[in-house]
Amino acid sequence: MRNCTDQEKIETFLGRERTGVLGLVSDSLPYTVPLNYVWRNGSIYFHGMGSGKKEKILSQNPFVSFTVYKELGTVTDPVPCHADTAYMSVMMFGRAVKVTDPDEAAAALQKVLDKFMPNYYSQSLSSTLIEKYRSSMDGNAVAVYRLTPQEITAKENSADLAILFPMEIQ
Amino acid sequence: MRNCTDQEKIETFLGRERTGVLGLVSDSLPYTVPLNYVWRNGSIYFHGMGSGKKEKILSQNPFVSFTVYKELGTVTDPVPCHADTAYMSVMMFGRAVKVTDPDEAAAALQKVLDKFMPNYYSQSLSSTLIEKYRSSMDGNAVAVYRLTPQEITAKENSADLAILFPMEIQ
Repeated sequence: MRNCTDQEKIETFLGRERTGVLGLVSDSLPYTVPLNYVWRNGSIYFHGMGSGKKEKILSQNPFVSFTVYKELGTVTDPVPCHADTAYMSVMMFGRAVKVTDPDEAAAALQKVLDKFMPNYYSQSLSSTLIEKYRSSMDGNAVAVYRLTPQEITAKENSADLAILFPMEIQ
Repeated sequence: MRNCTDQEKIETFLGRERTGVLGLVSDSLPYTVPLNYVWRNGSIYFHGMGSGKKEKILSQNPFVSFTVYKELGTVTDPVPCHADTAYMSVMMFGRAVKVTDPDEAAAALQKVLDKFMPNYYSQSLSSTLIEKYRSSMDGNAVAVYRLTPQEITAKENSADLAILFPMEIQ
């Protein structure tokens, strides 16, 4: 009964949030990686440096879940077992594939810069520059992944702000 | 090189953060559930209402990952590919088992209340009350789970606040 089917609300939420958690399966065991993402043309895009565990698992098993969650606060109730959490969450399922088109990769990375460092760089990224992208950690080329969800479910438990217990500022 | 092995820092982080993402494997596919948790005596505790998909999967496959992540901001750099994220994250792996001792379940739920609604209730929970706990959604009894990690890895990329790009207030 908490399902949210408002597509515009889901898209706005995915556009505004910064971090999601990628769920992977490696040798039958779960592995979960938090990462920054962008939502672009109905797909999640994220990037990695080509040498991490995430990339290794994805090369063996591309089936992923991706969950974006925003806690709004604790919903108070005089009865402890009726206290609850106000939140919005979106879960997506599908295959995460490496983007091979340099222009698509450049457009996705440009969107990353626009989202996380708006107006910081004066020049746009070009696909030529992307091919020269190297990690400052290990010199590997950047890999851009696209997840076009086969399934999206969203849940929402909104609450009157007046009954929310304040979350500590961290 | 971003590994954090400072146990006190890890425990402080787990005590302070509110939400983690549970990674599950269901029929060989990944499933990721965000949830509130408490860290108590070296274990993660979380609860559910006994009827959800999470509980169903756990009854078939108790092997989980649990990831707690805190983004601190974007680390600026004049070269786009050297821009980075400042964060702290802790990943845990092990089996999530249902707590059968009523006193342990009560102590875990009390810690949930103390963490998320400090000083809101005047009376402490008792194990008798816990057994009467029923979801306001479907009338099911509350189930408390304990994950004692077999493996913990923590990563940290701290950065001078001066070079962090401000995150939008949401």
